[in-house]
Amino acid sequence: MQSVNLQEKFDLIDQYWSPRVAGELNGQYVKLAKLKGHFLWHLHEGEDELFLVVKGRLTILLRGEDVTLEAGEFLIAPRGVAHKPVAEEEAHVLLFEPKTTVNTGNIRDERTIAEPQIV
Amino acid sequence: MQSVNLQEKFDLIDQYWSPRVAGELNGQYVKLAKLKGHFLWHLHEGEDELFLVVKGRLTILLRGEDVTLEAGEFLIAPRGVAHKPVAEEEAHVLLFEPKTTVNTGNIRDERTIAEPQIV
Repeated sequence: MQSVNLQEKFDLIDQYWSPRVAGELNGQYVKLAKLKGHFLWHLHEGEDELFLVVKGRLTILLRGEDVTLEAGEFLIAPRGVAHKPVAEEEAHVLLFEPKTTVNTGNIRDERTIAEPQIV
Repeated sequence: MQSVNLQEKFDLIDQYWSPRVAGELNGQYVKLAKLKGHFLWHLHEGEDELFLVVKGRLTILLRGEDVTLEAGEFLIAPRGVAHKPVAEEEAHVLLFEPKTTVNTGNIRDERTIAEPQIV
């Protein structure tokens, strides 16, 4: 049975805003993503999404309040709630969400990754 | 919306082998546990279980192979697979698993926590 070293997996990711699958359990994915810059406003109609910062800092803009996460902190964005992730510097983030979750939620544009790769 | 700082939550946990609920999403719990010593052999019939080591070292004994996790490493113990967590020194561990998962799986003894507290 194979353990997963987060740092080794992040080292393999060479694109920002491109979540990769690092584990699967109970119909959910553990994804890893390197983030830098501003993502788009979006929401997930039927899926809650967890962001755990492993390295760096991530701000999640919400309508009316922003939440900034440092390494070792997580936020659960509830289903239906619009959010916009922003990382002024490179951040390494672990996501936990249903397998069906698409990174851009209710929006489809050139940043949409419908079928994330395994890292 | 409230972020969760892992270290602050671990500081509130004063018992070993007593997972506390730090988040809920999509029918799953994020749990935090301080582990030290040997737990019991058990399995979860219908639930996969993720162990992410945040601090320290955790060995998961499996039938025929052991996996040792350092901080920043995770293992998914698949449903139906017997396992026995062992931490020679105190380890801080984040768990992802269905809300229905009981810490001692198919075994019921004095260490069973059927309804984990929120931390």
